Amino acid sequence: MDIRDQHLNLGEWNELIEQSLADPDSEPLFNLERDENPVYDAIFVGGGAGGRFGSAYMKAMGGRPLIIDAWPFLGGSCPHQACVPHHLFSEAAEELDRMRWFSDELFFPKFDASRANILDLVKLFLAGRGSAHAFMNWQTKEQLDVEYILNARATIIDKNTVTAAGRTFRARNLVLGMGARPVNPDIPGLDLRGVYDFVSLVEDLDYEPTKCVIIGGSKVAMEYGSFFQATGCDTTIVSRSPLMRTKALHHVDEDLRQYVVGGMRKRGMTILEEAVPISVNGTNGTVSSVTVRLASGEQVDLETDFVFLGTGERPNFAQAQEALGIEVGPTGRVVANKRMQTNVPGVYAIGDMIDGPMEMFKARKSGVTAARNIMGEDLEFDFTEFPDFLHTTYEVTWVGLTEAEARAAHDEVIIIQMPPYVEGLDTPNLPLPCAEGTMLYAFSKPELSGFQKLVVDGETRKVLGAHHVGYGAKDAFQYLDHLIHRPEGLTIDSLGWMNELFLNPEHFVQLSRLRAGKAKLVHL
Amino acid sequence: MDIRDQHLNLGEWNELIEQSLADPDSEPLFNLERDENPVYDAIFVGGGAGGRFGSAYMKAMGGRPLIIDAWPFLGGSCPHQACVPHHLFSEAAEELDRMRWFSDELFFPKFDASRANILDLVKLFLAGRGSAHAFMNWQTKEQLDVEYILNARATIIDKNTVTAAGRTFRARNLVLGMGARPVNPDIPGLDLRGVYDFVSLVEDLDYEPTKCVIIGGSKVAMEYGSFFQATGCDTTIVSRSPLMRTKALHHVDEDLRQYVVGGMRKRGMTILEEAVPISVNGTNGTVSSVTVRLASGEQVDLETDFVFLGTGERPNFAQAQEALGIEVGPTGRVVANKRMQTNVPGVYAIGDMIDGPMEMFKARKSGVTAARNIMGEDLEFDFTEFPDFLHTTYEVTWVGLTEAEARAAHDEVIIIQMPPYVEGLDTPNLPLPCAEGTMLYAFSKPELSGFQKLVVDGETRKVLGAHHVGYGAKDAFQYLDHLIHRPEGLTIDSLGWMNELFLNPEHFVQLSRLRAGKAKLVHL
Repeated sequence: MDIRDQHLNLGEWNELIEQSLADPDSEPLFNLERDENPVYDAIFVGGGAGGRFGSAYMKAMGGRPLIIDAWPFLGGSCPHQACVPHHLFSEAAEELDRMRWFSDELFFPKFDASRANILDLVKLFLAGRGSAHAFMNWQTKEQLDVEYILNARATIIDKNTVTAAGRTFRARNLVLGMGARPVNPDIPGLDLRGVYDFVSLVEDLDYEPTKCVIIGGSKVAMEYGSFFQATGCDTTIVSRSPLMRTKALHHVDEDLRQYVVGGMRKRGMTILEEAVPISVNGTNGTVSSVTVRLASGEQVDLETDFVFLGTGERPNFAQAQEALGIEVGPTGRVVANKRMQTNVPGVYAIGDMIDGPMEMFKARKSGVTAARNIMGEDLEFDFTEFPDFLHTTYEVTWVGLTEAEARAAHDEVIIIQMPPYVEGLDTPNLPLPCAEGTMLYAFSKPELSGFQKLVVDGETRKVLGAHHVGYGAKDAFQYLDHLIHRPEGLTIDSLGWMNELFLNPEHFVQLSRLRAGKAKLVHL
Repeated sequence: MDIRDQHLNLGEWNELIEQSLADPDSEPLFNLERDENPVYDAIFVGGGAGGRFGSAYMKAMGGRPLIIDAWPFLGGSCPHQACVPHHLFSEAAEELDRMRWFSDELFFPKFDASRANILDLVKLFLAGRGSAHAFMNWQTKEQLDVEYILNARATIIDKNTVTAAGRTFRARNLVLGMGARPVNPDIPGLDLRGVYDFVSLVEDLDYEPTKCVIIGGSKVAMEYGSFFQATGCDTTIVSRSPLMRTKALHHVDEDLRQYVVGGMRKRGMTILEEAVPISVNGTNGTVSSVTVRLASGEQVDLETDFVFLGTGERPNFAQAQEALGIEVGPTGRVVANKRMQTNVPGVYAIGDMIDGPMEMFKARKSGVTAARNIMGEDLEFDFTEFPDFLHTTYEVTWVGLTEAEARAAHDEVIIIQMPPYVEGLDTPNLPLPCAEGTMLYAFSKPELSGFQKLVVDGETRKVLGAHHVGYGAKDAFQYLDHLIHRPEGLTIDSLGWMNELFLNPEHFVQLSRLRAGKAKLVHL
């Protein structure tokens, strides 16, 4: 179907995408210029976050990109199955959590657990996800002017040739952005009814679980688990590593970790750390329990009607490996340098294909990095350091060094935090931090009002790390990351001279100011 | 009562403050070193935000400050009557608003308006405010090591002499931080029962209002009015100026204003702009209506059982004027230069005493500015430009130029916003922005999902202004303010290269990135 000259509005796009998804024989969607046998600057194989941003940047620079995607929409798994539903579910979890804690207090009615359903939220997501798809198709065509073919699986022929929808396309470069998919643990029983991962959860869930066993200790495990528990689905996490102590997460401060994991337990979750899943067991083809070997060595059966896999993801590299001989590293990801170049000249890999965090900023910026290098810039993208976050029923954000990392690397480390850095203060009934986003908690349930910590080098006075549990600080951490990691860094003096917007969710500005007058810094 | 050698914990402080507040004959609290006849570097008359931060900074620099405050606690009106209750009420308003919109949908029960009471929230605040007081007394003594006398009204004798609690104190400088109080409009009937301002609301409210008329169009009017309406108290705002078009607020973008004020109306508030209050009328000493002359010239009586004054504040300068001859300007505020120096050498004025926004950052930083100048630094504090915010049921934040201001000052202005900058896109059913904090709205009630706009100079590529309605971006605006207003500014290229934390409440990073590739910028 040639849509080049159609300027569909969002409603029309929505309908076209829905039809294409519903019908396995639906046509490819061509948004291509009219010239014959063009040679593109790059074909982006995959129109997810990286492909979309990379191609948009290339086009903006005057280049000619083409996106090919198997789905009838751009944006990839994020708005369809991954980060967007996660954010919707996490917002619901925050709200449900508040409604539970305040049940029958103030203006909150007695909490009605029967209303809180995973399935309802999944349905809400499914009913609305098309809007994001429609918008991205519309924007990429009408605002960003990027050519694309959707609803057509690309076949890589060689490093300059891709076929799709029965046609052949030539390019000077290939950019591989084929994403990742959940990886299953190697245990029996995963084919039983009632076993889900984050993809099948939104695609296939058709009953309301009452009990959940999560296998794995990833961010996904913590985020979805907190949501399940908030709906009233009694949730157990089975994790080989202590939560937030996995290799995939760096710079997790121990005080922050304890507040976060303690908060999950306080909400009724069972967290089995250093526990090994042995098998998922079923009755009549449906899951009924999970056998787990505990840290003690004891083996137990956990009864459940819902198993959720949160054991990470691995990239879709098979085709690129076969067709191009792309090198895959020991982590199971495609090997790429800081210009996103693979071992095959002219072939780039981006997003979840390569090492590093499977996060949006990396996906998008790696796409842009590939585009800019292809267009002749010499640009490296180093994502060794970045701000990070996850949700439980809280928003948890961090950037830079933990207190322990800082102490290992610097002689004089100063901690500025809320609750304050003192022994014997009558916490946990201290309503500090008392901050925007946790005001109701601070005045009613002080132990729930969050945690915040700033780690400062006492010698250079530079901020080394910042750590926050609460709400409303995540957006700020984008800028804190920038300020901390620029060459001149961010001193406590400069931070303390900023104009705070009281009652700021994190109090780093004003707390810094209380100490900045001191030539020799001390804790607060 | 000499507390110098007592190291009260927070519970003990809380009790002492409560007792002092309850008993009009309670003793002053002395936290003073033992030396005789000290001469302080400065006496801070008033231990509110400015006095507390100024004295802490002076002490940290090695100076010797003394705070004297009439209240038995430090921190001033903010935690006692002003910004802290406002934030608690605004958080309740956000929550009530969500519970109303989602009544009987998803996990939200049918909204029970009978549970939503202003009085309950006032009581919650009153029961908890002592904790903040206790903490500030504790912290200022134990962590910041500042001397103070509380529960004792200061009498200024001359520019080096203050008496309090029957004792005389000498200092090289005075810093006046005596705060402000609500100012009443000049109309009859304000002495009737049922007429409140933000101070008497928390101190005296003893019934649940059903209808409210707010006189004035200040931030306080918008914030408290949105809270009252959210509880179900049918609220009318009577404002001489259009809301957010008052002299006290600068840089209010018209699109943002329309979203915000439209949102208040959508929630059932009546907003009478260019309307003049004539009188508050009563029956048996209790308020029963407000007479208002509408913009049309017509005069109407608005029945009500609750009148709330939101007509601004004026500083407490009478004593300083009489004792010291302090100059007061045409705005009714003490005249001070950028070093916070008044017309009397050695006398400084800070916080709400002087012109500029009555906001926390100004209070604290003006106190610090006075302290640093007294200690020999040559430091100016310019608060001509600053980030600003207010609450309705939303969090509304802005910094820098509006679109109109930018167009007036620059040849080529580029707008990057959500919903996108295009005609004819099928808004308002567009769930954009789809952002953290408004995910449930985006998927269910798209017209409520917020508004965001970035204003960019097409020539220099620098961000001129940023504007946001939603949740969770306020903390970030502290850093955006810093980045935009530093000498080198913040280019769209630098912004677009930051590491976003998806689904960031404001999408400025990724939206900038979609355009940053263009040598000649265009709208998005």
